[in-house]
Amino acid sequence: MPSVRCYDCGRSADLADRKRCRCGEPLWVETDPEAFEWPTGRNPGMWRYTDLLPVDPPSGVGAAAGGTPLVRTPRLDVGGVQSFLKDEGQNPTGSFKDRGSAVGVASALDRGVERIGTVSHGNMAMSTAANATGAGLECVVCVPADIPDERLSHIAHYDPEILRIEGDYGRLYEVSLGIEEVEFVNSDTPLRVAGQKTVALEICEAFSPETPDAIVLPVSSGGQLGGIWKALHELRTAGLLEEFPRLYAAQAAACDPIVRAFEADEKEVRAIEGGETVAYSIANADPPGGNRALAALRDTGGGAVSVPDGATRAAQQRLAREGGFRVEASSAVAYAGLERLVERDEIGSGERVVTILTGHGFKESHGIDVDARTVSLDELASVL
Amino acid sequence: MPSVRCYDCGRSADLADRKRCRCGEPLWVETDPEAFEWPTGRNPGMWRYTDLLPVDPPSGVGAAAGGTPLVRTPRLDVGGVQSFLKDEGQNPTGSFKDRGSAVGVASALDRGVERIGTVSHGNMAMSTAANATGAGLECVVCVPADIPDERLSHIAHYDPEILRIEGDYGRLYEVSLGIEEVEFVNSDTPLRVAGQKTVALEICEAFSPETPDAIVLPVSSGGQLGGIWKALHELRTAGLLEEFPRLYAAQAAACDPIVRAFEADEKEVRAIEGGETVAYSIANADPPGGNRALAALRDTGGGAVSVPDGATRAAQQRLAREGGFRVEASSAVAYAGLERLVERDEIGSGERVVTILTGHGFKESHGIDVDARTVSLDELASVL
Repeated sequence: MPSVRCYDCGRSADLADRKRCRCGEPLWVETDPEAFEWPTGRNPGMWRYTDLLPVDPPSGVGAAAGGTPLVRTPRLDVGGVQSFLKDEGQNPTGSFKDRGSAVGVASALDRGVERIGTVSHGNMAMSTAANATGAGLECVVCVPADIPDERLSHIAHYDPEILRIEGDYGRLYEVSLGIEEVEFVNSDTPLRVAGQKTVALEICEAFSPETPDAIVLPVSSGGQLGGIWKALHELRTAGLLEEFPRLYAAQAAACDPIVRAFEADEKEVRAIEGGETVAYSIANADPPGGNRALAALRDTGGGAVSVPDGATRAAQQRLAREGGFRVEASSAVAYAGLERLVERDEIGSGERVVTILTGHGFKESHGIDVDARTVSLDELASVL
Repeated sequence: MPSVRCYDCGRSADLADRKRCRCGEPLWVETDPEAFEWPTGRNPGMWRYTDLLPVDPPSGVGAAAGGTPLVRTPRLDVGGVQSFLKDEGQNPTGSFKDRGSAVGVASALDRGVERIGTVSHGNMAMSTAANATGAGLECVVCVPADIPDERLSHIAHYDPEILRIEGDYGRLYEVSLGIEEVEFVNSDTPLRVAGQKTVALEICEAFSPETPDAIVLPVSSGGQLGGIWKALHELRTAGLLEEFPRLYAAQAAACDPIVRAFEADEKEVRAIEGGETVAYSIANADPPGGNRALAALRDTGGGAVSVPDGATRAAQQRLAREGGFRVEASSAVAYAGLERLVERDEIGSGERVVTILTGHGFKESHGIDVDARTVSLDELASVL
């Protein structure tokens, strides 16, 4: 059973005993990175970093997680800032969540756990269900009671048990972690975060021996940001990273508790009344990993930025029309965040910045106007 | 300008002069594989095989093509046959087409071509449009005149010029190749096939120094199958492959001209009257690369199999519900094909078989029934 530790108070524990620290903060899985070197083996995707993971590579869909492309995208440069994209849509269920699900499922399998669960009605639910079934585990997905069936269709393809939960969905996150019959792999639980950190290992290895100047990502629960921060510390301990890239959290303006806390110079993120946003998959008004996310932004000299929906939609369009990347709205928040950070001179000309596109946009059904004209085959050559 | 050659009559030509041979058959790009070794460099995705490609790695979305996971999937074993999946859905636009588009676009850019085009209303259109815009090229997509707007929405996200063509859409394929104002990168044109072959390089490298016993893939125009066959020959010339994996083509029973020709022991594929199928993206009644596909099946000791829609839907469900892979119907045709080939004893127990999942299923909008029950938060622990 992996040993876990609190980033804040330093207490250690066994994962079997607790998923959050007695002080209330999230825990992460301890590793031993001193002797870590960039791997040369043939493990696929994120599993090349098995030395920094609490489990061995699984078979099945979990083995297909990570290893996503990091590409230089000159057409998407912002001012003089050099744009790089990390396309997490190229995961088995189309989002970054597969990294954490794969670790959670592989660990459950190792320990003889037969049922895993998650509190989500979006990417995490799909990803957990897919990874569970690929490993032969049962999966329970808890969703809000009032969610329409069509929002659940993507999840149902993988045939998990879906439970509509009546009551305070916000409180469910915590309640679920106390349930013993099912192991919940929620957004900032230690095993999920152990998987999510691999995105930073991939980014840093691709740049090594150099380092990108900054990484911009959409932030919801704060789990991925916490994982990335952990990875940076591991690489520094291993002697593979001298300077940290600055980490920037992008949130939708309608629901931006982490940005507010950062700007107000608070140590803790307070729950807010979140509003509606097109980036609904990152609209977390009370992020369980919010304080750790704040600490990560400050430790790396980064920052936080809010993005109104109009800028998000414009960024989504630019990514597709000029970059060839079709992403979900929450990913576009990160790119729009980059544009604003450059405007605000927080990111400067000549810097190399990685924007994490957390999920592809093919699951979003919103149609767009099609502008096509009709020509006859015989006219085609002359029309062209 | 790359030099091209006919697999059948052996004639060479310059790509600028012709995309098909004077004998009528498709051409492929010549390479010099004698000294090729498995690469050790850091080029991303399919670009690790630049030594066997007519272009250098591009920047932008084209650099994100290929490098897809190949995973062992024990839960999807068929009888005693060991299942491996190659998940081509993990490409930038969600399908295998990105490999060929990336090469076509990179080559066009090299040669100062400013407009490229394609004849497609599906994955190839999306992929060509995305890759073109990512490189700053204009793109023309030719679709049938009577296609409904909603079928074009996925393409329109990338904002290419869409032309509805009145007249014989079948004939358009050939007409388009004669147009000088726009360079068409159709399904079995030499540059596209050069990109498509990289999937076989990845499969063979993952297994090396061993070899999979067979590869099963869905076949439409025959372009990808031709490319895979080319790659196998290149690897043999390089001394990296002793025995060929057997290649198997899977087609929808409603539109299976290549299967019919194979079973009738014909040297040429004849156009048929194709019917409707859920696997509409591979329903090509008159495949331009059909004869070359046939030659590939025979040269490798493989075969061909037709799949009725019911088996396709069942395979699609099994891939998602037991494997965690959500694929489009045409990809499920390949897995259903594997099941039938095992039933027919053409693939035997103990063999290791790679099924190529050519595209993910997130673009398909068909909803499915959602089976969810409602419980209150307080009951949750006891229900679980």
